[in-house]
Amino acid sequence: MHKCFNRTQSRFEQVLPGSEWCEPTLKAILVVADGMADRPIGELNWKTPLETAQKPSLNHIAKTGVCGILDPISPGTPAGSDTATLALLGYDALKVYSGRGALEAIGSGIEVSKGDVAFRCNFATVNKDMVVLDRRAGRIANEEAAKLAKSLQKIRPRNVLNADFLFKNTIQHRTVLVIRGPSRSTAISDSDPGKVGEKALEVRPLNTSVEAVQTAKIVNELSREFHKALKDHPVNEERVKRGLPSANIVLCRGAGTIPNIEPLSRIYGIRAACVGATSLILGVCKTAGMELIEVKGATGTFQTDYQAKAKAVIQALRNHDFVLLHVKAPDVASHDGNVEQKVEAIEKIDGMLGYILENMDETASYIAVTADHTTSLVTGKHEGDPVPIAITGPYVRRDSVQDFGERSCAKGGLTRIRGMDLMPTLMNLLGRTKIFGA
Amino acid sequence: MHKCFNRTQSRFEQVLPGSEWCEPTLKAILVVADGMADRPIGELNWKTPLETAQKPSLNHIAKTGVCGILDPISPGTPAGSDTATLALLGYDALKVYSGRGALEAIGSGIEVSKGDVAFRCNFATVNKDMVVLDRRAGRIANEEAAKLAKSLQKIRPRNVLNADFLFKNTIQHRTVLVIRGPSRSTAISDSDPGKVGEKALEVRPLNTSVEAVQTAKIVNELSREFHKALKDHPVNEERVKRGLPSANIVLCRGAGTIPNIEPLSRIYGIRAACVGATSLILGVCKTAGMELIEVKGATGTFQTDYQAKAKAVIQALRNHDFVLLHVKAPDVASHDGNVEQKVEAIEKIDGMLGYILENMDETASYIAVTADHTTSLVTGKHEGDPVPIAITGPYVRRDSVQDFGERSCAKGGLTRIRGMDLMPTLMNLLGRTKIFGA
Repeated sequence: MHKCFNRTQSRFEQVLPGSEWCEPTLKAILVVADGMADRPIGELNWKTPLETAQKPSLNHIAKTGVCGILDPISPGTPAGSDTATLALLGYDALKVYSGRGALEAIGSGIEVSKGDVAFRCNFATVNKDMVVLDRRAGRIANEEAAKLAKSLQKIRPRNVLNADFLFKNTIQHRTVLVIRGPSRSTAISDSDPGKVGEKALEVRPLNTSVEAVQTAKIVNELSREFHKALKDHPVNEERVKRGLPSANIVLCRGAGTIPNIEPLSRIYGIRAACVGATSLILGVCKTAGMELIEVKGATGTFQTDYQAKAKAVIQALRNHDFVLLHVKAPDVASHDGNVEQKVEAIEKIDGMLGYILENMDETASYIAVTADHTTSLVTGKHEGDPVPIAITGPYVRRDSVQDFGERSCAKGGLTRIRGMDLMPTLMNLLGRTKIFGA
Repeated sequence: MHKCFNRTQSRFEQVLPGSEWCEPTLKAILVVADGMADRPIGELNWKTPLETAQKPSLNHIAKTGVCGILDPISPGTPAGSDTATLALLGYDALKVYSGRGALEAIGSGIEVSKGDVAFRCNFATVNKDMVVLDRRAGRIANEEAAKLAKSLQKIRPRNVLNADFLFKNTIQHRTVLVIRGPSRSTAISDSDPGKVGEKALEVRPLNTSVEAVQTAKIVNELSREFHKALKDHPVNEERVKRGLPSANIVLCRGAGTIPNIEPLSRIYGIRAACVGATSLILGVCKTAGMELIEVKGATGTFQTDYQAKAKAVIQALRNHDFVLLHVKAPDVASHDGNVEQKVEAIEKIDGMLGYILENMDETASYIAVTADHTTSLVTGKHEGDPVPIAITGPYVRRDSVQDFGERSCAKGGLTRIRGMDLMPTLMNLLGRTKIFGA
């Protein structure tokens, strides 16, 4: 173990706590375009949006790089953005994934400790029979949601002793509920029925453990107390007067704990950062020990400030070895079945990449571009088809692929890899992987 | 969980017992041509049989589809038809396979329960020194075999208490022996020496467990009793008079239990059927919860009724979501080293596919064609080379492959996948896979 790292010496060894960094030579950017990959569709003359878009920068990366296709989790398995991002960061998601709730909470700036169970929740609207009328309470404004959340946080559940909890709103109707540990369980069903017209559900323990039974009891008790406090809350009375749906219930789903993973700094000895906006991805990155770079104007929507994010990446590269750039827009367009918007989102991402390519040091930086999963414009869902991947930089084995697309990249030099293979591939190019054997 | 399934709603969720089906939109056919893949041979000007055959329908599937090569189990591992079919149905054969005996028994219509151990057996001919003269007793006729089996089933083994068993003939010399459970073991060697000129063997326990020792004892005791009953049996006396070999022994091999697998209906929420004739494949499919479609004229030989099977597939597609069509002929030709017959078998399969392509709804159906393994005309054995795979249907990422062959498909968009990856890939195209993550 050494106190200082440089290119020729000891960079494979473990970092001593408190050791100083020598400026390393090689850096890498990983661009993850959420749901960018797709299937060929008739509307685009049996091309995919990626095959249709004008994308000189993406093509440049493919042309100068090594390409392939990548199964985020495994062939045919539709990946979530959380599991796929874990995989793209090199983790075995099938082993370490432990639900979305805690990741989303962490990404929203809420501290989740080992043993806590966190839920992704929504403010929603039910009628008097508890039938869901609006799963997002009319996408309630942040300010109103904050007032409601503040009231709910004050509740002390009467029938469940020692149940400490944290409830916080994030964006619009989105909220997070954390049941503090130590002995909580994620083996809990959702109270969110997932669609309008069905009743809000009691959560059920999914096994017979004391922890699961107890955690379910707490969530049900809290849900009742929340409903009681919300239905006549001044904020809601005011909303109803204005003809808006009352945010009279909290629907919970995705019970999760923090995944038990080693930070990237310890695995590869790198300083890693993330430029993104969606709390789920930020949560994954924070859990992996990455620094979260805040970007004004990064919204996680189609109207995000692409250029600001590109600038933030270049900035972050100065004092980090690895920067993940996540862009949500293509996924949003896909879920909405909006073909034009998806093509446009890809072209905007291409613009970001143009800025990054112009401003990064090409002699000492690698850049990889991929998607976290296929999202089909036809089904509006995440699908299990592989995604394209291209890596360019000083020492890649450049192949003959000329443009970045689902089918063109399948002919590339990487052939077909798993999501969790990408990070070791990149880290190896950076000289950050350990030899196995002698 | 919902009572009714359709394309846009809840298709990823679990089926309620007793729930009704809505007619789903998308269907899939998987055609498995047993041992169709091969190596290039001098006799065919260093082409493979598949590269030599006239095969417009196979080429159509390749041309309009996405192609690749597939390792049934893993590169270099010669797969059996049972392990490969398990893999092609999406199971991890390395984990779930538990011997051929039980699969063959189930495929012959014999019920095998958990804890039972089943053997694939042959009526065979030994001389007075127990040396095997004919491993198939001159391929004894079904009627004679049935009479012998009936006599054997009446035997009550004297020295082994509580040993309940079932003995049944299937086709010609082929028979099945099931030792009823609950505490039986598959850790038992074969009594079949595997070739003529060697002595019939005592079976041995392959570990020191009580179950293995006991099961071996039962099989040996039964074998002795069977031999006693067979050697002077009127059927055999009659055969000897006609100059035919006496079916005076039962040789056992392939001790197996039923694999502990979830049915396809539960994994993917599909109704699945199998059109095939060989009992080993039927056994695999039945164990996977598939309906076995009986086809008059389907024999599992070169002289099978190809058109009848093709019609049965189209018929089965009306009320099933997934139909596996298995054709044995190319494997038989390969084992016999019969080049011409192998090429002809492939051309006949191409004819079947022609009928299927003409009669299926191309806008709502996927069809995949592959082999379960390579069978080499030169070695006469299953080999570990990958097999070609092509999938066509509405939303596949069509690639530039123009014809179906071992080498042409290696350039396709699927690149190289494992056998167990195929089913998730197909089920994903049908919208039948669950998202992993959020």
